[in-house]
Amino acid sequence: MPELRKDPILGRWVIISIERGKRPSDFASPLHKRRVRGFCPFCPGNEYTTPEEIIAFRPDNSEPNGPGWTLRVVPNKFPALQTEGELNKSGEGIFDKMQGIGAHEVIIETPDHLSSLSRMAPERVEDVLWAYYRRINDLKNDRRIKYVLVFKNEGEAAGASLEHTHSQLIALPIVPKIVREELNSSRSYFDMKERCIFCDVIMQELEDKKRLVLENEDYLAIAPYAPRAPFETWILPRRHESFFQPLNDSYKSLAEILQGVLKQLDSLLDIPPYNFMIHTSPFTGEDNEYYHWHIEVMPKLTKIAGFEWGSGFYINPTPPEEAARYMREVEI
Amino acid sequence: MPELRKDPILGRWVIISIERGKRPSDFASPLHKRRVRGFCPFCPGNEYTTPEEIIAFRPDNSEPNGPGWTLRVVPNKFPALQTEGELNKSGEGIFDKMQGIGAHEVIIETPDHLSSLSRMAPERVEDVLWAYYRRINDLKNDRRIKYVLVFKNEGEAAGASLEHTHSQLIALPIVPKIVREELNSSRSYFDMKERCIFCDVIMQELEDKKRLVLENEDYLAIAPYAPRAPFETWILPRRHESFFQPLNDSYKSLAEILQGVLKQLDSLLDIPPYNFMIHTSPFTGEDNEYYHWHIEVMPKLTKIAGFEWGSGFYINPTPPEEAARYMREVEI
Repeated sequence: MPELRKDPILGRWVIISIERGKRPSDFASPLHKRRVRGFCPFCPGNEYTTPEEIIAFRPDNSEPNGPGWTLRVVPNKFPALQTEGELNKSGEGIFDKMQGIGAHEVIIETPDHLSSLSRMAPERVEDVLWAYYRRINDLKNDRRIKYVLVFKNEGEAAGASLEHTHSQLIALPIVPKIVREELNSSRSYFDMKERCIFCDVIMQELEDKKRLVLENEDYLAIAPYAPRAPFETWILPRRHESFFQPLNDSYKSLAEILQGVLKQLDSLLDIPPYNFMIHTSPFTGEDNEYYHWHIEVMPKLTKIAGFEWGSGFYINPTPPEEAARYMREVEI
Repeated sequence: MPELRKDPILGRWVIISIERGKRPSDFASPLHKRRVRGFCPFCPGNEYTTPEEIIAFRPDNSEPNGPGWTLRVVPNKFPALQTEGELNKSGEGIFDKMQGIGAHEVIIETPDHLSSLSRMAPERVEDVLWAYYRRINDLKNDRRIKYVLVFKNEGEAAGASLEHTHSQLIALPIVPKIVREELNSSRSYFDMKERCIFCDVIMQELEDKKRLVLENEDYLAIAPYAPRAPFETWILPRRHESFFQPLNDSYKSLAEILQGVLKQLDSLLDIPPYNFMIHTSPFTGEDNEYYHWHIEVMPKLTKIAGFEWGSGFYINPTPPEEAARYMREVEI
C-alpha cells in the first residue's frame, strides 16, 4: 500500500511507494563525468570572457581577472535580473508587475575543470561556503534586495549549461513564494508551541534515527519525512540558527557534512545530476526564533509531469527510510 | 530590462525576459513523432495486457476487453494510489500520514498508435472529454475521494512512459495544494469584490486581446499574464462555471479550442512534449461563485532547476504577448 505523507513545514503531501521502493540501481542515471570539451569560460586563462570578478580567492601577488585564483565570483553573463534601476512597482489592470531588479552571480568553485564539489579538497568546499556568506552579506546592503537564494545545478539534466563546477545566487526584490510559505508556517507553529518546528523535527529524527543520513557535532543530514524526490537530503544545523552563517567563525563542519552527502550520492547513484538550494531567513527578521536555515539537496532522478504540475503533489518511488539506509551504508 | 510579474490567482511571481525573448525556433524541441516500436499494451488486440476496462466507447456488438473500441479507460497497471482500503489517518510523532487510497486510471484516447489529440477527428476529442467527465462523476460517489485531477503527459520529456496517446486521472483523498491555493485565493477575491477573479481576468484579456490565443462562442484560450513556461496556454469557459462539465450537453466547442491550441503548438514548436492539467472545483462545494474551472497546457521546453525548486519563481524566456502572437499566426 502506498503512503500519503505530509511535509510538516510546507503542508505539501507526497505519495511514497512503500512496497515497490526503488533502489539506487533502479535509476538510470545519466552519468555525467566531466570531460574537457572545447572552450570553457570558467577555466584559468579565460577570465577575460566573464564579466569582471566581484570577489576572488587568489594570492596577494596575482592580478584580478587573471589566473592564480582558487575561487571566483562573477556576475552571470546572461543574468535573469539586472542590477541597475528602480523597481517601479506598477499595475496593469488587474495584474501586478515590477522591473526585474536584482543580481545574478556565479560562484566558480575551483579552477580545475574536472573537479567537483564532492571531490575537491575539504578546505576548498569551506571556501565555497565562505563565498556564499560574503556575497549574501554584501547584497544585504542593497535596500532593494529582500532575499538571496543560493543554489547549484550540477549536470545538464539538473539545468547546468556549463560543466565546470559552479553554483549561483539570485538576489530578489521579493521573498520567494516557497520561502514565504516556510516562514509563515514555522511562525504559526512557533505561535502555537513556542518552539521552532525544524528543531522539533531534528529532535525526532535524532531520536528514531531511521531517516538520519550523516551527523557531526554541529550539523546533521536527514532524508526528510515527505521528500519530493528519491534521495532528497536536508542538511541543518543542530542548534537553532535562523540565518546562514558560519559556526564559531568556521565552515569546517558544514563543509564536511555537505561533501559527505555529495560523496554518498555520487557513490550510490553513479554521479547523479542534482540541485541544491540554501533556505535562510530573509534580510528583514533574519534573526528569529521560528525559522531554521537549511540546505536541500535533490538528486535529479525523476521527471516532473502533469500530475505534479497540476497538484503540487509529488510521487516518490523511494521511501526516505530506505534512502537514508542506503546512504548510511556508503563509506566516505 | 526583465520584468517581474505576479500571477493574480496563485500569487506566484515569474521573471519574464522581455528583451531577449525566445522565439519558437530557439527551442531545441526533442521532436517526438510517433513510431510503432515493439509491443504496445494500448493497441487493439492487446487489451488482455491492461487491467479490465472501466468504460469503453465501442459498438454494441463488441466484447469488453476485446478490439472494436474507439476509446478505453482502464486502471493504471502501476497505480500511484490503491482503490481498496481505508485512509487510516494517523500521526507519526510530529508527522502526518494516511494510506495511499485513491484511483489512478488511464484514458486510451484512440486505437490508432500513430495518432495524437492534435490530429484525431474532432468528434474523438469530444469523446475524450466525455470520458473525463464520466469518470470524474463516477468517482464522486466514493466518499473517500475529495478531488480528481485529470492530466496528460505527451512525449517522453513530459513524463509519458508509453507513446500511444493517452491521458490519466488520479483521484485523491485530499484537495491538492495548488488547487487549494487557487481556491483560497479566488475565495478571498470574491469576498472582497463579489466577483470571480478568473471572470475578471477573462474580461481584461478579451478587452486588450494581446494575450488572446484563440476563441469561439463558448471558450477562450489565453497566454496567462505570468506564465511559468514559454507558450503556456490556459483554456477557460467564457461564462462562469466552477466545475468541469459539458455546455448544453456538448463538448464540441471545448474540443475545438483544445485541439486548436494543440495544433498551434505542434506547428510552432515541431510537435513538442507537453503536459496539460484540468483544474476544477473539488467535490465539496463544486458549484460556487468564486472558482472557474480551466485547462492549463504547458509545453515542456525549459528545465526546472535549483532556482525554481528553491524559490517557486519561474524564469520564462518568452513573454506571453509574443507567445500569443506567434500562436495566433498559425493557420489551423
